Amino acid sequence: MTWSADRRALRILDQRLLPQETRIRELTDLDEIIEAIRTLAVRGAPAIGVAAAIGLVVALRHHATSSVPAPVLLEDFVTRLIAARPTAVNLAWAVQRMHRAACAMPATATGEAVLDRLEAEAEAIRCEDVAMCEAIGRHGLALIGEGARVLTHCNAGALATAGSGTALAPVYAAHAAGRRVSVFADETRPLRQGARLTAWELAQAGIPVTVLPDGAAASLLASGAIDLVIVGADRITANGDVANKVGTYGVALAARAHGVPFYVAAPWSTIDPATATGADIIIEHRHEEELAPLPPGVPAWNPAFDVTPRALISGYLTDRGFVTPPFGT
Amino acid sequence: MTWSADRRALRILDQRLLPQETRIRELTDLDEIIEAIRTLAVRGAPAIGVAAAIGLVVALRHHATSSVPAPVLLEDFVTRLIAARPTAVNLAWAVQRMHRAACAMPATATGEAVLDRLEAEAEAIRCEDVAMCEAIGRHGLALIGEGARVLTHCNAGALATAGSGTALAPVYAAHAAGRRVSVFADETRPLRQGARLTAWELAQAGIPVTVLPDGAAASLLASGAIDLVIVGADRITANGDVANKVGTYGVALAARAHGVPFYVAAPWSTIDPATATGADIIIEHRHEEELAPLPPGVPAWNPAFDVTPRALISGYLTDRGFVTPPFGT
Repeated sequence: MTWSADRRALRILDQRLLPQETRIRELTDLDEIIEAIRTLAVRGAPAIGVAAAIGLVVALRHHATSSVPAPVLLEDFVTRLIAARPTAVNLAWAVQRMHRAACAMPATATGEAVLDRLEAEAEAIRCEDVAMCEAIGRHGLALIGEGARVLTHCNAGALATAGSGTALAPVYAAHAAGRRVSVFADETRPLRQGARLTAWELAQAGIPVTVLPDGAAASLLASGAIDLVIVGADRITANGDVANKVGTYGVALAARAHGVPFYVAAPWSTIDPATATGADIIIEHRHEEELAPLPPGVPAWNPAFDVTPRALISGYLTDRGFVTPPFGT
Repeated sequence: MTWSADRRALRILDQRLLPQETRIRELTDLDEIIEAIRTLAVRGAPAIGVAAAIGLVVALRHHATSSVPAPVLLEDFVTRLIAARPTAVNLAWAVQRMHRAACAMPATATGEAVLDRLEAEAEAIRCEDVAMCEAIGRHGLALIGEGARVLTHCNAGALATAGSGTALAPVYAAHAAGRRVSVFADETRPLRQGARLTAWELAQAGIPVTVLPDGAAASLLASGAIDLVIVGADRITANGDVANKVGTYGVALAARAHGVPFYVAAPWSTIDPATATGADIIIEHRHEEELAPLPPGVPAWNPAFDVTPRALISGYLTDRGFVTPPFGT
């Protein structure tokens, strides 16, 4: 996602409609932008942060004629954006950074000057994200030999960032370097991000991709058809435990059982040294409706994430290169 | 599934419509019966065998006024029934047993006498299946302590047999014995037999059941919420390897990682001493369409089964009690 051509709107690809429909939307209204974040039209930690930063600027410009004084409007928009997905660390981080940039302006600055400053800050956040992806791809290129067959889970690709993704960045880098590489994408129930998003973006890029049911990952690894696993991360704790989309842990166990290396790729900012181990992470549980249809009265157990312990992880790939736990404060 | 009240039709619950709709159908026409087996309106190895045996009788009675001579009709029906699902061992076994019963009749027997003989043979097959389930339940009762929390994968329950199921037979037996027992059912993509069938039949029986995405099984086991795993089997090889619905192997790996016992429950007839190990089993691959929707041009890897090695299996529960590999011929 990025700016529209005239920089007056947030331009997104509506991920809820993929893969059946490729619909680009240009949003200027704060309610529309919040709705897009809340309903996962935009998703992926880095992408949400960039979308919120750009969204804040364009929504403020859109309301420039509002009778509400600008500082009050800013506070209101910041609060409402953060509330769109309260557990998304990157969203709060990006919006608070924007807020600080505005607050650092002299009291005498015009509204237009504040908006220009915010636009520059949002563009900086976007560019840093693109650079982060590029750095992960560059450092991770060594993992992807000629003909490599990569298994991944969920979507930690271009659709989840402003750039080429995290887990998929090395795959795109290898493809760009002329290496043959193919990807197996777990379907990733319940929301099917692997089947809908990872498969879609790799196919768009001309990289061979095959989708499998989550339950088939263990036998795929047993078959010898996979050279390495790369997944993203939602949070990495001080000891190196990794919270990521539910299903990741099972893939890690199967990879270990068959001697297949299992890598985690994420921005350095995903490392949370303040959290000691995976046991300290509170796992968000999502709505049972995601498992529908179910028989009447039957509940679902639907955690968003699981925790893969440090012992199962072959390497941690970040925009600062490979890093090794423990991660200090 | 069973006979209709007048024994002139095959009575089935159409499993394709569950859990949204509970539709009982009474079939007499061979084409309808074959279609029901082919499209999984009836599924589960034991259930398919019983349905084919009853179906053969009712279809022959239905065509009693046909101008085709009875022996020719019998040969034709036998061939067509077996072809409905060519890899279903139990289907071929039941139909061939019916065929032998007819062939053993004296040449002087009337058509009506042959039909009566076939009806008795089909009823014997059905009763043996009910008794098989009951025996598995009785032997397996010791596994299910008061308050036991059981994880299962796919559907090896009442819907898959003429009785109370295989993997679920001990659960039903414990419930009948007044013990509290609860079940966690993997959704079981791609066809969702856990969410649609296992959850439905347990809820009908008043047994608490919760559905989870397949990818969540490893973290559920890690959480300590499960006392034991019980799954069914499609084939058990001489050394004790088990072919079962894809996803079973991953559950077995996670159970082992967390010290949770992993049991396989199946009719003794599922043991195939002629096949040495799981590596000798040819795995059926199903249609990519089961993973739809996928982005245009993206293929799916969709094996029907996986193989769980003997080393991960805590016990083999059959209608003959607990058995231990190797299994001789």
